[in-house]
Amino acid sequence: MANKVEPRILSGFLELLPEDQIIFDRMKETIEKTYKKYGFVSVETPIIEYSEVLLAKAGGETEKQIYRFNKGDNDLSLRFDHTVPLARYVAKNYPYLIFPFKRYSIGKVFRGERPQKGRYREFYQCDIDVVGNEVLDLNYDSELPLIIYDTFTNLGFKNITINLNNRKILTGLFNELGLTELKDDVLRLIDKLDKIGYDNFTASLKDIINDEKIISKLIEFLNIKGSCKEIISSLKELNYNDETFNLGVNELETVINNMNTLGLSENNYSINLRIARGLDYYTGTIYETFLDDYKELGSVCSGGRYNDLATYYTDKTLPGVGISIGLTRLYSKLKEINFYSNERKSSSKVMVINLDGGFEEALSLTTKLRNENINVDMPHLLNKGMKQKMQYASRLAIPYVVIIGEDEVKNHVYALKDMAKGEQVLLSYEELLKRLK
Amino acid sequence: MANKVEPRILSGFLELLPEDQIIFDRMKETIEKTYKKYGFVSVETPIIEYSEVLLAKAGGETEKQIYRFNKGDNDLSLRFDHTVPLARYVAKNYPYLIFPFKRYSIGKVFRGERPQKGRYREFYQCDIDVVGNEVLDLNYDSELPLIIYDTFTNLGFKNITINLNNRKILTGLFNELGLTELKDDVLRLIDKLDKIGYDNFTASLKDIINDEKIISKLIEFLNIKGSCKEIISSLKELNYNDETFNLGVNELETVINNMNTLGLSENNYSINLRIARGLDYYTGTIYETFLDDYKELGSVCSGGRYNDLATYYTDKTLPGVGISIGLTRLYSKLKEINFYSNERKSSSKVMVINLDGGFEEALSLTTKLRNENINVDMPHLLNKGMKQKMQYASRLAIPYVVIIGEDEVKNHVYALKDMAKGEQVLLSYEELLKRLK
Repeated sequence: MANKVEPRILSGFLELLPEDQIIFDRMKETIEKTYKKYGFVSVETPIIEYSEVLLAKAGGETEKQIYRFNKGDNDLSLRFDHTVPLARYVAKNYPYLIFPFKRYSIGKVFRGERPQKGRYREFYQCDIDVVGNEVLDLNYDSELPLIIYDTFTNLGFKNITINLNNRKILTGLFNELGLTELKDDVLRLIDKLDKIGYDNFTASLKDIINDEKIISKLIEFLNIKGSCKEIISSLKELNYNDETFNLGVNELETVINNMNTLGLSENNYSINLRIARGLDYYTGTIYETFLDDYKELGSVCSGGRYNDLATYYTDKTLPGVGISIGLTRLYSKLKEINFYSNERKSSSKVMVINLDGGFEEALSLTTKLRNENINVDMPHLLNKGMKQKMQYASRLAIPYVVIIGEDEVKNHVYALKDMAKGEQVLLSYEELLKRLK
Repeated sequence: MANKVEPRILSGFLELLPEDQIIFDRMKETIEKTYKKYGFVSVETPIIEYSEVLLAKAGGETEKQIYRFNKGDNDLSLRFDHTVPLARYVAKNYPYLIFPFKRYSIGKVFRGERPQKGRYREFYQCDIDVVGNEVLDLNYDSELPLIIYDTFTNLGFKNITINLNNRKILTGLFNELGLTELKDDVLRLIDKLDKIGYDNFTASLKDIINDEKIISKLIEFLNIKGSCKEIISSLKELNYNDETFNLGVNELETVINNMNTLGLSENNYSINLRIARGLDYYTGTIYETFLDDYKELGSVCSGGRYNDLATYYTDKTLPGVGISIGLTRLYSKLKEINFYSNERKSSSKVMVINLDGGFEEALSLTTKLRNENINVDMPHLLNKGMKQKMQYASRLAIPYVVIIGEDEVKNHVYALKDMAKGEQVLLSYEELLKRLK
């Protein structure tokens, strides 16, 4: 190709063929519809913001990943998550918002990471947060697991496990054991526990904590297992004095009781005392979500409770609780395992095909069916005939075809073909409409 | 506020309060739903692309407006429309696409213009295009006005006029009158005709064309008015020999005949021989759309037929026809005139409010109603009572409230309040469900 520019895209950017885009869009719609069902409203923030504003908090690794550039006199950055824009939005619009403020944001964010398999530089995050004004009722912490469960059920998954913890329990544990100053190191080890095993874990602990008794207490805590009721009982039986610890246990108990009342079965959640989700941000309830039949995906939805959303922008205290689904990564993992392979890959329900003498009737029919809110396509292929039109419908995976020729026009009937079954029937307009609805 | 960053956003970027975002999102959904009804499938391209690829064609004014920057070794740009990414997409995925390829793209594009009232630097464009492989049937040109009409009807407008023209008629006219080399200048004047009036127009014409006869022929052409039938007749009666001219007239006639068969009333379209939509890109049918009751908005949806979409990326000839709606600009103009002021500004249908003794029943009810796909909110306001909860529902513009206290639980009834009418009734669960569905 002389003088042509190669039509390539950047690595780390997902772009789909139409049949895959349909699946992706359907996942996105499912998530949005579910978020709305729980009373969340949409907020869309700009993709470009002042760097000074967007990076007020950022530093280190995050800041290196930002797409940042100058335009005119302005130092600009692309949004890299929905949390910072939410904080800025709430601070900016504080007088006009109604608290508790329940918002969802579904949109692309940008991080210029070194691309690896399964990592994207441009990807969808689907967030919900409930933000309170000075205070936020603990009941919202109980609602989020319901939403997680409902969302993933609607996405087609059967076995969902939401892991819960409360950050105050871990903080209180460290207070109780006199490990507060070492908490970052210990948390990092706990995070690795499943990977490295107890022996290595204990050995590494000994490097930082020179006290067998404390180590055995820590391991006693980490070994607490069982049903939620059993875990809560075991935590209480530890008889720790630390207030934060006990507050955390009580919060977790309340959250779980209300989850039950809301109708979530314990088959779909459990307490996992080892999850911490980072060192700083979260201050209460914590969530991680696993799909039992697809554990290799890791946590598909995480989040938790935080004390103060917008401390960089306002003096108001804005506690909140939220979750996030990384849709682009989730989609591409599901694509790899062909999770949605049996789904219909067309947004059209029917294709209207005209033979000789059927053109005008075919045009009218498309309009009539569209007026009934049915998605209809009609192929115009110049001088191509029936065979090419049927092929077109078949390649587009359109489930039904209506064929209209001279005979059909004369007899006021429509030939409806079910493309999957290969069956064809002659129908009146009323019958046709009933079938397609 | 000491040490706080001011939570401001860039000028030229639209960010909405939740009650406005609901309206915006509803407009976007309406457009998308209508596009789907006509057999279009979604394509989402990256927001960031290689500058070399995205700017293959651009130059002059467009290129100055681009958000362009370096990240690592890459020269990157943000997409500034959906047409260039479509061209790149079709060229890249040519072997995997099914032609005619009917795609829609709804998403943000970026142009760093000097911001003025009604101009945005980040804005939504909602495009559809039908792209053919080597050829594209003229019938697609008839389908687009139907989609324009349906879209704006669904957006709530009553009086819609789609202006049609065919670029070949203008090209042929210039050939016929020997004005081909002056066509850019003459087109620019025609474009201004409505603004400057016939006298100034004729005077300016004399500066470029020193031939009274040609000028009078040009004005004779521009004065052709009437119904579509009358205009087509008048065009034929000109008895021009130019082939392009006559091809354009025939195309326009065919397009309009099929629009009638598709069911579009001539109340909703007319031929306007003066519209050209730019100098180069379009080569056949041209569309502009006006809302008769809101003429000040200008054309709200424009587009047309082009000979070759992706000439910068591929040797394949890819003719197409498409239209575009500038949603952000449209929304903000409609907001100014309060067009949607009477619309419900909540995505929740009902708020469930518990009084003393009703908490658990209220929680269960939210889940039951959500399982029926009703959008339900429930306020958790710590120790706040009935009054604050009702205020919360009212400020959120939620149309119904269900109140559950001890009595309601005892008697197995639900108090349903219609917030607009102020009426309250006691209902069984079945009655409640029926009302809310």
